[in-house]
Formats: sequence, C-alpha cells, structure tokens
Amino acid sequence: MRPLLIMRPDDANVAGNVHGGTILKMIEEAGAIISTRHCNSWNGERCVAALARVERTDFLSPMCIGEVAHVSAEITYTSKHSVEVQVHVMSENILTGTKKLTNKATLWYVPLSLKNVDKVLEVPPVVYSRQEQEEEGRKRYEAQKLARMETKWRNGDIVQPVLNPEPNTVSYSQSSLIHLVGPSDCTLHGFVHGGVTMKLMDEVAGIVAARHCKTNIVTASVDAINFHDKIRKGCVITISGRMTFTSNKSMEIEVLVDADPVVDNSQKRYRAASAFFTYVSLSQEGRSLPVPQLVPETEDEKKRFEEGKGRYLQMKAKRQGQPESQP
Amino acid sequence: MRPLLIMRPDDANVAGNVHGGTILKMIEEAGAIISTRHCNSWNGERCVAALARVERTDFLSPMCIGEVAHVSAEITYTSKHSVEVQVHVMSENILTGTKKLTNKATLWYVPLSLKNVDKVLEVPPVVYSRQEQEEEGRKRYEAQKLARMETKWRNGDIVQPVLNPEPNTVSYSQSSLIHLVGPSDCTLHGFVHGGVTMKLMDEVAGIVAARHCKTNIVTASVDAINFHDKIRKGCVITISGRMTFTSNKSMEIEVLVDADPVVDNSQKRYRAASAFFTYVSLSQEGRSLPVPQLVPETEDEKKRFEEGKGRYLQMKAKRQGQPESQP
Amino acid sequence: MRPLLIMRPDDANVAGNVHGGTILKMIEEAGAIISTRHCNSWNGERCVAALARVERTDFLSPMCIGEVAHVSAEITYTSKHSVEVQVHVMSENILTGTKKLTNKATLWYVPLSLKNVDKVLEVPPVVYSRQEQEEEGRKRYEAQKLARMETKWRNGDIVQPVLNPEPNTVSYSQSSLIHLVGPSDCTLHGFVHGGVTMKLMDEVAGIVAARHCKTNIVTASVDAINFHDKIRKGCVITISGRMTFTSNKSMEIEVLVDADPVVDNSQKRYRAASAFFTYVSLSQEGRSLPVPQLVPETEDEKKRFEEGKGRYLQMKAKRQGQPESQP
Repeated sequence: MRPLLIMRPDDANVAGNVHGGTILKMIEEAGAIISTRHCNSWNGERCVAALARVERTDFLSPMCIGEVAHVSAEITYTSKHSVEVQVHVMSENILTGTKKLTNKATLWYVPLSLKNVDKVLEVPPVVYSRQEQEEEGRKRYEAQKLARMETKWRNGDIVQPVLNPEPNTVSYSQSSLIHLVGPSDCTLHGFVHGGVTMKLMDEVAGIVAARHCKTNIVTASVDAINFHDKIRKGCVITISGRMTFTSNKSMEIEVLVDADPVVDNSQKRYRAASAFFTYVSLSQEGRSLPVPQLVPETEDEKKRFEEGKGRYLQMKAKRQGQPESQP
Repeated sequence: MRPLLIMRPDDANVAGNVHGGTILKMIEEAGAIISTRHCNSWNGERCVAALARVERTDFLSPMCIGEVAHVSAEITYTSKHSVEVQVHVMSENILTGTKKLTNKATLWYVPLSLKNVDKVLEVPPVVYSRQEQEEEGRKRYEAQKLARMETKWRNGDIVQPVLNPEPNTVSYSQSSLIHLVGPSDCTLHGFVHGGVTMKLMDEVAGIVAARHCKTNIVTASVDAINFHDKIRKGCVITISGRMTFTSNKSMEIEVLVDADPVVDNSQKRYRAASAFFTYVSLSQEGRSLPVPQLVPETEDEKKRFEEGKGRYLQMKAKRQGQPESQP
Repeated sequence: MRPLLIMRPDDANVAGNVHGGTILKMIEEAGAIISTRHCNSWNGERCVAALARVERTDFLSPMCIGEVAHVSAEITYTSKHSVEVQVHVMSENILTGTKKLTNKATLWYVPLSLKNVDKVLEVPPVVYSRQEQEEEGRKRYEAQKLARMETKWRNGDIVQPVLNPEPNTVSYSQSSLIHLVGPSDCTLHGFVHGGVTMKLMDEVAGIVAARHCKTNIVTASVDAINFHDKIRKGCVITISGRMTFTSNKSMEIEVLVDADPVVDNSQKRYRAASAFFTYVSLSQEGRSLPVPQLVPETEDEKKRFEEGKGRYLQMKAKRQGQPESQP
C-alpha cells in the first residue's frame, strides 16, 4: 500500500518544513484504509475502523515542500476487537532522487458496525509469517491496554486562561483552538477522522511552542495519543495545549481535545483525546537551538513538570539503549 | 470563546497580507458557534443560527502569513427572533509577541428549526449586566431592521445585462468561472499544476451541463486537452464553458481557459488551455436519461454543432470497431 | 507507483459520484511526479515536468464517496523534449473489496529548466521492453503533435463577446465568479455558511480592484452585508462585482450574490446577498498609493458613482468625529 502525495505550501511552516500534523494525518488515512479493508474481509457485518490509539511516534527527519511523501502500511497484530497497523513514511526529493525515512508509527483501530456505530465488531485474525510475531504483538497489545487505562484516569483537569502572564510561564504560551466539525472532517458514518483531530492537535502544540521560544519550531515526537471517545458531526471541539516540561533543547506540550455537542443539549462536553507532543527549536540553518527554561508556578504545574521530566529521562535512557533508532 | 488560527500561504495575497475574506470567514464561524449554542440553551426545538446581516466592518490593520488570529465573540443583544453577536479579531506575531486589533464586527443571526429550516424559532433572552445595554441593543436592532428593508428595495439591478435567453439555447447554459491563482495551486516554480486547471475545467463543464438538463450529471469523457501556455502565480484565470452539441443521451461542452496577468501590466490576456467535455444525465437510480436537444441560434453556434456531431459520430464509429474499450 | 486516496464528500456531486475533475487532478499529480522524476534521472540541469497535453479520456465507471482511488502511472514513450505517461485509475470499495477500472489516460509532459522556466530541456530516453513499443510511441507522438497544431489554429474565438472596454471604465474591471456549492461550504443542515459567501464576495471584489489599479490591493472595509435568503446545497452561485466609486486613495466595489438552484427546476434564480467593499492600493513597501480615477460611462454608472461618493463623504465625516476609531 503506497500512497504518494506532493507536499504543498499550505502543508508547511514558514521555513518550508512540513507540519508534523500533516504527516500524522497521512499516516492515519493509510491506517484507516488498511484496517477497514481488513475488518471487512470476512463476510460479516459491514464496519468502519475507528482510531483508538497512536503509539509514540518520532519525526526522524524533516520533510519539505515539493517533496513527495510515500506512505506504506501493514497489519502487524489483531486481537479479538482491535487491529494494530504499522506505517512507514518516506520523503523523496524527485529532483535529486534522495529518499529518507521520516516516520515509523503504530496505530490501533477498532471496527465499529455501520448499522450502529456504538457497537464494536470482531476482527478477522491476521496470518503471521513467523510464530513469534503473534506473541510479540500480544505483548504490545497488553502494554497499550494498560497505558490507555492510565490516561483515562488523569483527564479531569482543563486549560484555564490567565491574564497578563509572565514570559516562560505555562500561562504565557498556553493556547486553545476551537473548531466547528464540518462535513469534510467526517467519515461517511458521521464521526471525525482521527487524522483530522491529530492535525489540529499538532497545530495547537506548534502555537504553544512558538509562543514559548519565539523561533522556528518543528515536531520532534508525539507520545502516545489516546482516543477516548468518537467525535460526532455537529460538535464543536476545543483543542487546548499547555507546556509541561522543557529540557535544554526540547519542549513537551500536553494537548487535550474536548468535544461539545452544541446543538444536542442532552449530551455533555467530554474528553475525546489527549497526547504529549515534543517540539524542538531550529535556527535559520536548521540547527537545533537551546530552549528557554519553563517556569512552573502552581503546584499542579510543578507536578506536571516533574512527570514530564520523568518521561524525558525514560525516553533518553531508552534511546541510549537503542542507538540505531534515530538515524 | 477564543479560537486561534495560524494564517497560511493560501490565506494571503502575493504580498503576504491575509485576504479580508479569510478574516470575514473566521468572524462568521465564531458568530455561528456562539449564537447556535445560545439558541439551543433552553430545552426547545433544536435549531441552527443562520447569518442575516453583518454591520459595516473596518480592517484596522493588515494581518500577515504566519501570524496567529485570535477571534473572540460575545452575544450583545437578543430580540424575539434574532441574536446580535460582537466579534473581535486580534493578530499576534508569535515571534515578537506583538498583538494588534484588526477587526471589530457585529453580526445578526436568526435561529432556524432543524426539522424545517424555513421556520424561524424564538431566541432565549440574554441576561444584561447593565440595564442600558438592552436599550442600546434595541436601538441597533431597529436601525439594522430599517437598513435591511432599504437594501431589499434596491436589489433589482444586476451587474451583467442578462438577456433572458430561451431554455435549451447555448446562451442559456453558458457559464464562466474566475479563479485567482493561489500558492497551493502552483508548483514550487510558480506555475499552476495542470491538474488544478483540469479540475476547474470540469467544474465549469458540469455547471453548463446541469444548467442545460437540470438533472444529476456526470463526466463521460474528455476529448484531448491542450495546454498552450503556462499559467503563472498571481494570474486570474477565466474558465468559460458553452454547450456545442447534444446527441440523444450526451452533451458536448467546449471549455476555454484564459489567463490574465492582473498585477503584471506588461503582459496581455492569453489562451492557456482548451478541451471538449462530454457529459451524460443520470436518473436518481443512476440510469442515463435523454437530454434536451440543444438549439443553436447563431451561424457560429450552428457550425460548432455540426463539428460536434462530426466528433460524436467519429467516436461512435471508433467504439463500434473496438467493443472491448468500454468494459 | 500507486497513490491511494479516500474520496471525500467534497470530491463528489450531490448524488455521491466523484467529479471527473477530481479524478483528472489525481491523474495529473501522478503524471507530474513520474515524469519529473524521470527527467531528473540523469545528472543534467534540474527541471520540472509541465503538462502539455492530455489525450482523450473516458470515464468508464463512476467512483463514489468513501471508495479508495488507486492511481498507477508508467512512462510509455520519450521523444527528445517530451514524455508520454499512461495512467490507470481503479476504484476500490474497501467494505466489499470490489475493484473497478475507472480511467485510462495518456498525458504528455515537457521538462522546463528550474533556472529558466521558459527553457525546455532534453529528456533522458526511456528503455523499452519490446522494440515495437518505441515505434508505436513515435506514431502517437506524431499524431498528438499534429492534433496540437490544429487546436492552436482554432483558438481565436472566445465564449463571451468581449467589447474591448477602455481602461478605468466600469466594464473594464467588472468580474463574475461562479461557484458550485459543495458539502464543506455548508452547515450540517444543507445551507451555505455565511462566512463562505463573504469570502467569495471579498475574492471577487479583490479581482475587480486588482484589475482596475494593477497593484497589490487590500480590503479596507466592508459596508453592511445583507443576507436576503439562504443558499441551499446544490445551488450554483454567481458573485458579481463592479466598481462604483473611486476617491484619491480608495475604490468602492459593489458585490451581488445570486443563487441558481440548478438541479431543482421549480425554483428561480434569486438575490441572496449584497454589499459594498472598499479597497486600497498598496506599494511594495505597504504604503497606500493613489488610485486611477474611475470613468463612469452610462447613466446608471454615473448615478451609482454619486451614491458611492455620498457613502464615502458620510463615512469620512463620521471618522473625523470619532478619530479614535482607527488606532
């Protein structure tokens, strides 16, 4: 499966680097196609695959306007009710012929019945070429299930506006974006494509990062994104971002997505998705710059800073163990 | 309510100033969200707020690509059947932190029933913090009501002298579309992708076909499309379509593309591309329908009709010789 | 080479059939990628492939919203300065697994130098797997060359009788834009967002202003916009703009919006909205420039000029009374 797309000016920031959100959207589109096709491959009830979670994703090298993106997707594990898809993204400069790996991503989908989108169907089992694949997949499945439950629990708090905040504080850079869900954001069955949500999440994270360090910034990685609930047509969604942690050369931004069924009064606002984005600051020449140190003020901010530091150190340790992961 | 949006290359003209129209669109989106939410806030019939009027709006300072637009909206008055919303737009340069007020706008909305969009519902009254607010709002309401009536009265005249052509003539269905070439229409080297031009050509041909037969129509084939000359960034292109020929079940439409270098005074308007599109008319069930016979009036129209008939008969003969080409 | 794309509501007409133009655009994107890559495959001057001609293309079976389009492209012939690409498009229903051939197309590209887009470069020769392929390709090449020359010859005529209006007259700059209302223009309840209409109105006003003064122009203000009636899905809207008045440094353009329910025969064309836009002309440095004086010709144009002058003087007086309104 190989979608190709030429990157256009609107896909990129002012320095010509394609937004991480555009790449996440392409990844999700490829994942949705392959998993919907797979879930309909036995003659059961017709269904559509809905995005449930994206594992941590690194942006290994920047993609630029005019390059061609190659996206390939493969089903790597199936549980009774979910599908794991691995997606690779390459960028190709068609003038020089140079190709580079820009992303590897792992996504989890759940098949929803077309007749009743609240009903989860069974997934046809995938055939593994090696026996270990099933066992490795099962471990990844159990790990993500556990991780999902943890995020669900911590979703209560929201981003609140503060007046005239000091530079380098959390309040100074925090940002919210409101989006009215329109027909072209949605699947045929009336809920928002996961890729559309991820693109908006990256957009808010980018605004937070740019406000904090006032330079050209790019997405370096996205921590697992959990989709707690479907967003339906006719909702207004609020995407809020706040900085949680800075290291010398990176910024971590928490992004929360809340859906608000404006017209239907009977349903309450609910948390639809959440994730942590990591951004780096770049000089004109594309080298990474030091980042101003974040100043947490409240007790909650200090707690989140420490949690962010924990994730940062854990990831650093992991990378030092696997030096080939960042070519 | 504070939506944020980063301004993209397509939002701006060649000098990097954001189009007033893009700002008006953001303003209206904010107004529609807040007034739809307000009108559904009591437990009555579900409704959607439709825009009825925008008061005079000044563009106080230009907004540029890369800036972040902040839009805030507030309900300032409600009459029995309408809502007044005031919207403020600020532009923020997130690198320097500079913020500027770019617009203040006042919009009027009317709630339409979701069950029957021709029915206007009642508006829940807004609570005023000062008593004068209601009185001032009432005055604005009366003033706009009067102004609306005046415009309605003077709407008779139209821009182009429409000669009320007879149905089924060439003049009746002929159509032109103007398109201002934007960054995402173009290659990195500043000329329009051929595919963008073809999409617009098909759009015009489709409008001509729909006007002629007033049914659902689809493209059946496109005769050779020739690109005589490149179209550069900053051009206005005019895509014109006219019906040339009808058979029992098909319509042939000639489409011409002319480029007009609006800003560059030294260059003249030139023909950039041309083609013939063939459309068929479909019933609700997707079966092809008979097409009203085209009535050519002028000598030129009669000549083009005969030429179109020639192409039609030639193609029919070719197909009968090669029955495998249409599976 | 196999791009995949899910067809969205915006790609299709009201009956759910994907527009031929959307398919043509995908075909061209695939052709441009493969031929640009091929023309840069030897170590010569860098170039970009520009579309020169598309051969006759049949739409063999309709594609629908929700289906996945597969596009594959192959270089089938090269002459000294041109490349022939053949593209196949398949539609796949990912729910049922059904695949259908929807298009076979042949496109001709010409490599243009990146340093000088008016210079055509040489094409690296393609390697043929069978010797007859070169001979057959040469025949197609000669045939299209001949056909191209014939079309060039008949390009004199244009659709609308252009009366060669004098510069600075109303007729010289007046412009109309036709827009087919698509799903993403609309609310969930099937009528056009007011913001979409306003964006198109500003676009037409901008084209009129640019044609009049041939410089960079920006919106300065919009007089009250009245929405007389809803515009429904499936309408064609015509947005017409004409200059009504010029002061030393500003231009007033009247914009009228008419809706035409193309498919629904029972309803007549009606006036949906109207407004006056004021534009100013800017130098490269962003300073406001003098505007060429409008020359009204007919009695109506003279009357409208006086009315515009009235609005201009009234606004000027208002502003001098409230100097704080433009900070």
